[in-house]
Amino acid sequence: MRQVAILGIGQIKIDEHWDLSLREIGGNAAFAAMQDAGLDKVDALFVGNMLSPLVDGQNQLGTFFSDWIGLWHQEAVKVEAACASGAAALRAGLMAVASGDIDSALVVGVEKMTDKAGHDITSALATAADADYEVEQGISFVGINALVMRRYMYEFGWKHEDFAPFSINAHANALHNPFARLHEKITVDKFEKSSMIATPINLLDASPIGDGAAAAIIVPAEKVASVSGRPRITVAGSASATDSIAVHSRKDPLFLSAAYESAKRAYELAGVQPQDIDVFELHDAFSIMSALSLEACGFAERGQGVKLGLKNEINPKGRIPVCTRGGLKARGHPVGATGMYQVVEVVQQLRGECGATQVEDAQVGMAQNIGGSGATIITHILKAD
Amino acid sequence: MRQVAILGIGQIKIDEHWDLSLREIGGNAAFAAMQDAGLDKVDALFVGNMLSPLVDGQNQLGTFFSDWIGLWHQEAVKVEAACASGAAALRAGLMAVASGDIDSALVVGVEKMTDKAGHDITSALATAADADYEVEQGISFVGINALVMRRYMYEFGWKHEDFAPFSINAHANALHNPFARLHEKITVDKFEKSSMIATPINLLDASPIGDGAAAAIIVPAEKVASVSGRPRITVAGSASATDSIAVHSRKDPLFLSAAYESAKRAYELAGVQPQDIDVFELHDAFSIMSALSLEACGFAERGQGVKLGLKNEINPKGRIPVCTRGGLKARGHPVGATGMYQVVEVVQQLRGECGATQVEDAQVGMAQNIGGSGATIITHILKAD
Repeated sequence: MRQVAILGIGQIKIDEHWDLSLREIGGNAAFAAMQDAGLDKVDALFVGNMLSPLVDGQNQLGTFFSDWIGLWHQEAVKVEAACASGAAALRAGLMAVASGDIDSALVVGVEKMTDKAGHDITSALATAADADYEVEQGISFVGINALVMRRYMYEFGWKHEDFAPFSINAHANALHNPFARLHEKITVDKFEKSSMIATPINLLDASPIGDGAAAAIIVPAEKVASVSGRPRITVAGSASATDSIAVHSRKDPLFLSAAYESAKRAYELAGVQPQDIDVFELHDAFSIMSALSLEACGFAERGQGVKLGLKNEINPKGRIPVCTRGGLKARGHPVGATGMYQVVEVVQQLRGECGATQVEDAQVGMAQNIGGSGATIITHILKAD
Repeated sequence: MRQVAILGIGQIKIDEHWDLSLREIGGNAAFAAMQDAGLDKVDALFVGNMLSPLVDGQNQLGTFFSDWIGLWHQEAVKVEAACASGAAALRAGLMAVASGDIDSALVVGVEKMTDKAGHDITSALATAADADYEVEQGISFVGINALVMRRYMYEFGWKHEDFAPFSINAHANALHNPFARLHEKITVDKFEKSSMIATPINLLDASPIGDGAAAAIIVPAEKVASVSGRPRITVAGSASATDSIAVHSRKDPLFLSAAYESAKRAYELAGVQPQDIDVFELHDAFSIMSALSLEACGFAERGQGVKLGLKNEINPKGRIPVCTRGGLKARGHPVGATGMYQVVEVVQQLRGECGATQVEDAQVGMAQNIGGSGATIITHILKAD
């Protein structure tokens, strides 16, 4: 299996892009990645997207974008794993380059969610849950996560405000990321007074949707010489694992076994352990997910993930910096694009391009993308060399 | 790149399965493939599906099925390329096994289309076309293909009845396939008198939708000893290519350049030429597509594809047997599943399991799956050894 490197990255600001079509959103991130890589052609395109059939009336998004971008005749395909679609597309591209079948791939995570007036995004997002056994009961996707959070608080004795540091850290970091959806400092008081969505999840526990796209160019590592003095970024570990799609089918709904499994394999492949991770872009769709991810990936004991926030260990100078560019909470969560934003941000950290939220001497970074409420979890570990 | 073999296959009858859920349809094909392969576990699951978000309200179909099938914690993902989703899922699985990252994969193409009363399948299928520039004009997917067929008839001087042999051959072959949707012999007279859908495409030019699933188990070729005296079936060539998503953007809408490109690369990888292909499961969603595929893949000159039918060269004893199990026309076209039915059928031919429609001494078979009206085309060449 050939080692694969990330040669270029691109992204657009997550926002309500009333003036940009789905084509332009994905295309702009793709063009940025190709420019960053110094390439004007690649062998294949892998697109991560969750909602375009429902929200944009458009399927076949691989070819939709290869056409728009000008990759005529090149292979193109869409990969979908709910909110983990971005990382799933990267992983599909990685396998193709690693196999030797192709020598370069463009991976784009893209989602246009905000300008379809009247379309019910809450229902569209619920397609990530089990249609027959969860959604059929009338529960929304945030409702499912609220049940998990409530149980976690009951089981381990945490109060709602104990989750505040996750959101505060994300918002503080996003202030320095021009691509972030929200640029707004928050406090514990504001966090506690925020509007309730589905008890105990309030507006500041939840990540905002948005229109966005992020992209990367991947090539065999041996073909990458240093580009303009930048370090070479290799994909040292890539793994995907699953759990039951319905949360109620799990023996323990408070343990992200798919995060545990995929992180374990990614650590093995990369030859690292949790303490070697310098930066961790985790999937904080809801604040509870930050705690559960940190626990499943070996950064905290069961039920103790929130302590890392309370002890100030998750900021860019802490023991395990998370959401250094704002995370889903403040950078934003354009669902099928999110996994690629995470990867792009880890690359920025390993290149030392993060300014005020730069993690000092970051050499090893991890990105973890979650589909559904812990159903599909994909972990990538990147290294600078 | 490791060579990959197909160790097991499974399928269900294409039909209106009012008594089977989406889970059961995909699961039954998957279990059949695992039983055929003699395996009870695989490393990863790749699902090809186009319509489940729209028709079933279900996304994240990889994990949806890994959960149902009992592949707990294993990697699972969905791949979508409109009606080429089945072959696209196979190709994603192939890359993962070929890379060495995983040692076995289950690939399932699945679609449940018929029991969602009131849901507009015609609109759902139109998501394969260009939403902004084709569907926006009010044209349906069959309408786009009708424009292509009409132009072909005008350009090359063929009459509608010249296309009859494609449908007649498909229906004749389906009579011997218990998994086929339609078991009904047709004649030129019946073909010509069939109800018009979108001139010049009538009901017998068009393939029927249906609920269906087909599956295969793939493993590294070196790990396959002969199974119960069966030949070993290897994937000798796999390639995917694209064209513009909108037909009007093509220089020549009567040439399937993505079929030409993907077949050319598959031939090269397999070290064969068109005359070496013993059986060709092509994508006859509409009769015009049979002609265009045969031309683009090197079996006929431009504009002369229909001649192969008229000269009786496409039946199981002809020069280039196509649709030997009924094709999309009579076996049926459960869109995201179709590509896997084609592959399963080529394996059956190479194993010599096709009874009355067996192609004598079939050693090399080709399956070609088309997404949109020629936008994404994926070609696989299988060999028996």
